[in-house]
Amino acid sequence: MSFWGERKKMGLSILIACFLLIHHVGSMSVERSTYIVHMDKSVMPKAFASHHHWYTSTVDSLSPVDPSVVDGSRSKASLVYSYDNVARGFSAVLSKGELEVVKKLPGFVSAYRDRQIKLRTTHTPEFLSLNPSAGLWPASNYGKDVIIGVVDTGVWPESRSFLEDGMTSSPIPSKWKGTCQVGEEFNASMCNAKLIGARYFNKGLLASDPNITLTMNSARDTLGHGTHCASTAAGNYVDGASFFGYAEGTARGIAPRARVAVYKVQWPEGFQASDFLAGIDQAVADGVDVLSLSFGFDEDLPFYENPIAIASFGAMEKGVIVSHAGGNTGPHYLSLFDAIPWTVTVAAGSIDRSFAGTLTLGNGLTITGWSVFPASALVESFIYYNKTLASCDSVALLLDQASFGNIVICEDTGDFFNQLEVVARSRAAAAIFISKDPDLFTSADFPWPGVVISPRDGPAVMNYVKTSARPLATMAFKQTVVGTKPAPALESYSSRGPSRTYTRLLKPDLMAPGSLVLAAWIPNKSAARIGSAIRLSNDYKLLTGTSMACPHVAGVAALLRAAHPKWSPSAIYSAMMTTANALDNTNNPIRDNGRNRTFANPLAMGSGQIDPNLALNPGLVYDLTPQDYVNLLCYMNYTENQILTVTRSKLYHCSKPSPDLNYPSFIAFYANGTTKNTTATFQRTVTNVGDGPATYKVEVVAPAGSVVTVSPKMLFFSNKYEKNSYSLSVEYKSDKNGMVTFGSVIWVEDKGRYRVRSPIVVSPEMAF
Amino acid sequence: MSFWGERKKMGLSILIACFLLIHHVGSMSVERSTYIVHMDKSVMPKAFASHHHWYTSTVDSLSPVDPSVVDGSRSKASLVYSYDNVARGFSAVLSKGELEVVKKLPGFVSAYRDRQIKLRTTHTPEFLSLNPSAGLWPASNYGKDVIIGVVDTGVWPESRSFLEDGMTSSPIPSKWKGTCQVGEEFNASMCNAKLIGARYFNKGLLASDPNITLTMNSARDTLGHGTHCASTAAGNYVDGASFFGYAEGTARGIAPRARVAVYKVQWPEGFQASDFLAGIDQAVADGVDVLSLSFGFDEDLPFYENPIAIASFGAMEKGVIVSHAGGNTGPHYLSLFDAIPWTVTVAAGSIDRSFAGTLTLGNGLTITGWSVFPASALVESFIYYNKTLASCDSVALLLDQASFGNIVICEDTGDFFNQLEVVARSRAAAAIFISKDPDLFTSADFPWPGVVISPRDGPAVMNYVKTSARPLATMAFKQTVVGTKPAPALESYSSRGPSRTYTRLLKPDLMAPGSLVLAAWIPNKSAARIGSAIRLSNDYKLLTGTSMACPHVAGVAALLRAAHPKWSPSAIYSAMMTTANALDNTNNPIRDNGRNRTFANPLAMGSGQIDPNLALNPGLVYDLTPQDYVNLLCYMNYTENQILTVTRSKLYHCSKPSPDLNYPSFIAFYANGTTKNTTATFQRTVTNVGDGPATYKVEVVAPAGSVVTVSPKMLFFSNKYEKNSYSLSVEYKSDKNGMVTFGSVIWVEDKGRYRVRSPIVVSPEMAF
Repeated sequence: MSFWGERKKMGLSILIACFLLIHHVGSMSVERSTYIVHMDKSVMPKAFASHHHWYTSTVDSLSPVDPSVVDGSRSKASLVYSYDNVARGFSAVLSKGELEVVKKLPGFVSAYRDRQIKLRTTHTPEFLSLNPSAGLWPASNYGKDVIIGVVDTGVWPESRSFLEDGMTSSPIPSKWKGTCQVGEEFNASMCNAKLIGARYFNKGLLASDPNITLTMNSARDTLGHGTHCASTAAGNYVDGASFFGYAEGTARGIAPRARVAVYKVQWPEGFQASDFLAGIDQAVADGVDVLSLSFGFDEDLPFYENPIAIASFGAMEKGVIVSHAGGNTGPHYLSLFDAIPWTVTVAAGSIDRSFAGTLTLGNGLTITGWSVFPASALVESFIYYNKTLASCDSVALLLDQASFGNIVICEDTGDFFNQLEVVARSRAAAAIFISKDPDLFTSADFPWPGVVISPRDGPAVMNYVKTSARPLATMAFKQTVVGTKPAPALESYSSRGPSRTYTRLLKPDLMAPGSLVLAAWIPNKSAARIGSAIRLSNDYKLLTGTSMACPHVAGVAALLRAAHPKWSPSAIYSAMMTTANALDNTNNPIRDNGRNRTFANPLAMGSGQIDPNLALNPGLVYDLTPQDYVNLLCYMNYTENQILTVTRSKLYHCSKPSPDLNYPSFIAFYANGTTKNTTATFQRTVTNVGDGPATYKVEVVAPAGSVVTVSPKMLFFSNKYEKNSYSLSVEYKSDKNGMVTFGSVIWVEDKGRYRVRSPIVVSPEMAF
Repeated sequence: MSFWGERKKMGLSILIACFLLIHHVGSMSVERSTYIVHMDKSVMPKAFASHHHWYTSTVDSLSPVDPSVVDGSRSKASLVYSYDNVARGFSAVLSKGELEVVKKLPGFVSAYRDRQIKLRTTHTPEFLSLNPSAGLWPASNYGKDVIIGVVDTGVWPESRSFLEDGMTSSPIPSKWKGTCQVGEEFNASMCNAKLIGARYFNKGLLASDPNITLTMNSARDTLGHGTHCASTAAGNYVDGASFFGYAEGTARGIAPRARVAVYKVQWPEGFQASDFLAGIDQAVADGVDVLSLSFGFDEDLPFYENPIAIASFGAMEKGVIVSHAGGNTGPHYLSLFDAIPWTVTVAAGSIDRSFAGTLTLGNGLTITGWSVFPASALVESFIYYNKTLASCDSVALLLDQASFGNIVICEDTGDFFNQLEVVARSRAAAAIFISKDPDLFTSADFPWPGVVISPRDGPAVMNYVKTSARPLATMAFKQTVVGTKPAPALESYSSRGPSRTYTRLLKPDLMAPGSLVLAAWIPNKSAARIGSAIRLSNDYKLLTGTSMACPHVAGVAALLRAAHPKWSPSAIYSAMMTTANALDNTNNPIRDNGRNRTFANPLAMGSGQIDPNLALNPGLVYDLTPQDYVNLLCYMNYTENQILTVTRSKLYHCSKPSPDLNYPSFIAFYANGTTKNTTATFQRTVTNVGDGPATYKVEVVAPAGSVVTVSPKMLFFSNKYEKNSYSLSVEYKSDKNGMVTFGSVIWVEDKGRYRVRSPIVVSPEMAF
């Protein structure tokens, strides 16, 4: 497991990620390692006062102390954490021999090695239609009395986003059992009516390497990611927030009146699954309603070895909604890793906002391009064009005196980000970049004055420059344009299904704003830079990634929890998914920036862009009980202990194994390279959550080349909470080209009040 | 006459000023030049309907049109302006022959060549004790209904400082006759209840060179100076104003409820006295109450050829208070040029505010230094010290790869501003400058991250760097410290008396904040820079100079005008001068930054720092009538026409020529190089402006080596507005070393309500 910072270029960051992964696994090859051990608490001998005593005693018994060895905790087996809420068991530093002993103990369920986890940071903003006059905000009282747990890198408690203004009129909900844990540069008075709790977990990290010196041994955030995510989900209203003048306005979270509790499990020094499990275990015990998890494993793990899957199952059982970032490893299929049936898996889209730089030539021509230069640069200079240097890829530009104080042109002949680095070391007054690199629109790193114009506008500029004796230009910066179209578009970096863990579930579930999201930042970590040497601080920052999309969904889920206190997590997931919008703001299908702006398919965006106001009243929901999820695990041929690792309770049974979860989406596979005809049949049950009787009629948009049959074609409900079932079959033919086709089934309420939509995907079976 | 921008280094700017002066005089050596001609209107032949017709007809008659010449206005004599308020006469483009004809016309008084005028910009802030709960602000209703005319470079009407919020509850005073003149990018709707008028004057400039293309042919400011000065005098309240985070707070003028009228006479293309005279002529006709004149001639001109002296005499006659910047040509004696008896001449001081950068070394040592780097730089790097490069004066630093990304040290071996330029082109993360250059505290130009520490703190830093294997440092910026001591100090750049025009008047009159004043700026002119290439825009800027001190005094005068509507300008000057504070905020005499921080003498600071609240109730005033000023002109052996040029009216007489103006200060001269004993005697008359009877007793602080005798020693007043006279004689001996000595006479009211203080200077006669 590994952490990596804000991604800039897709290919590069994947390489870095893999390297860190290998590096860390290598560094763990010592005598003892940390293992997470799941136990069946029901067989605990009565001699023990508590599970904690049981685990402590167990671990202590493994290795007698050898007084000749003085290398700290590694000299003997030692307990790291005991878990009791979302997992049952403990984590401990064990040798392989000791692990074998543990495996033979009564009550042993499963064990696996501790892992490093990866944060999902890239870039995003918010253009969901939340408004104070109608819909989900007023219906939910802005999330009042809902507690969002953010398990991440900690928090900057002094951020204006966590002031308690407007939060003190009602007491903190009595169910709250959390605390404000004292630590380095963090005292108990730093929590308040907004930031109601903060804890930190690093025993697993210290166990993995006792020589680690922690930068900040407290819940204080030194990385920024957690502060950003927490404020996106539930930050208070902050006037005059901006990224150096861009995106200026009132910052606020999606659920601005929800409470925030922070669990710091990610450290600059590393990030261990055991700490994560301890953090989420505690969060559930503390009483959070929603969890926002903006990280994951970018590796293939079965659910029973995936602490996120294990922890979120326990959370789900207790009614806690879990929003989980889908990952930033797109745009290829099968790039989605931990796709967990009992969490909502979030893809990331663009927003309808652009950061513009305006280029005005001496002949009066004005071109609006792109710029996020983080200062109010004043550019009015001559344009200096030199064909040799206009690739902007060599040190020659830096030494070319004719460029000093003038505006240079960087043509579309090389990598934009590389050109930007070269210009940032130059003495040019500014640069005109001609580029269509789509990645530039997800990056807020723009260290030199300049405007990026599209290759379409290039000839007009070049013509002026070549025909004018003294070509002149001015530039204007810090322009924020909202309402840009089309938006959202699914972003290239967003991880795509099918899920590598369990392919027969259509994942991700839905998408939310993920690119260039403005949210709170920590003051002592660079928010931007100027040139190659000057780093800048700012209290708000634009970040991009599914990490940023995830807390948007957590915020919406908090609003829905406030509006519907009794709904199960799966009912809330269903409400968000069946009301999601598959169209962009031009009323055309959402496009995919990772696939040349063709229409995004549900393996990329799930059901579509989250629509909070529609999710308030979905009409029907596809509900699920914990046993329903267990039926899926049973179908997966997991052993009893593997299932018990996840479920922690023998009260669940495997009498009805089924791959066909009552899920609000459908995916059917065909074998590659054949032209076989296949029929896939699904059973679903929907619950009427509208008020009173309702009649629904089905509408089908069949995937190209498929026949979709739904039976019955109408559903009649007499009462609220009444259930009705239907079957859906897809008759389809394999495609030799491996095409993915998609459609949808929509249950339309006959008075037009509700449209309950589920995507249908027909996909080749994929291998990796 | 010339204009020059913000000064950085004294020596350099003087050189530039002289150069521009020579250059412009040279460029005017064409066939015809612009002359300002003063006329006696009383002899106007009755055939003319108006003085304007008279002047037009006169000029037209000078040269018959020669159809073979086609070079525009220069082909014949032509009228530029006619003047009627503060001057009587006209300006016209004339050949030398034509000028001779004009001189022989009936009614001719005097004529002189049009000149370029110089703005007085350098750096300042505001720490006068104005407050809403007591004193001059509430007593004056914040200057409500007073109109301040700012004759300068125009105005940026969209500046937040000129919004009319809070100004619309009362109508614009009915005496206001001005207008909002339409021009390029300036329409009539740009004026409002705060900015009540705007006009522009450039006929003189165009006459001086008909080929000039004006950058902006309207009252819109393209230089920034006028916008800054106008907002300093009477800008509205603007929350959140700052210079890139420095000096952050609510910006507001000294008279925040006064109205502003702007007269643009300074252009990027030049600045002619004829335009200035036209602007101030119109301002007086329009009905302004106060004029703020932040410019002057840095050359020796007799009053009758000095348009500022001429125009301000007319203004004074009409009760208009004129605040005039003393100039930025200090620190030497005799560096004060147009010291006009009927204006208040303003020196510039520092304020009790510092812009701090904090340097923290890896060993924990924290040093607070100076920094105005205009961005939130985040510096945490290794310190790289290389003795050879630490002079920071060569290109070698720029190429030294070991410095890249690290913090360099620049030792106190060279010019700080030069070091800053070199570092600004480097790739160092930041610099630690060791310097005691006092000029750096008046400059807001700080283009690279860095902190200036004093040579006193240098050894501790060097010791750490030399003894640590990996010396580390962090820096923090954007810190504003107020209440620094001692403050104010008289600034080095502030011009010093004795006046070169008329030495027997102690000038300047008083001092006001002039260094690093934050006020409104125009968005399209650089407010700061980063590195050598990046210029930044900002709507507020720190500027330094007597130009900035002048509108502070104009603002105070406006408040006093509101509180005392009937007082003469000289009474208001007297109130400001006799209550000025000669002590700083440590209760020691104000120090002189231009003289090694020794005590400032009145030839540098006049009576001391303006104290608005005390000026509200001065107890006694030294009043003057226009005839009193004429008596001084008569004493100066001016011809009748020379006097008439200034006074415009034969109603004044020369029956009582006198060098001894009833002025609230005293200066006595001795011949250089002798040890002669001399006695100087002065007569003064004071008017009781306190309510009811009062008794005053004299206190004298005699200049070293002098005996001061005042007679009588007590003054008794039975009624308000009663006058009493006294004589003051100074018996003193010449000093072979040419020392200037100083003291004061203070009339102390016996109930302790008033202290009416006048400085006394004994000075050698100086020549230049």
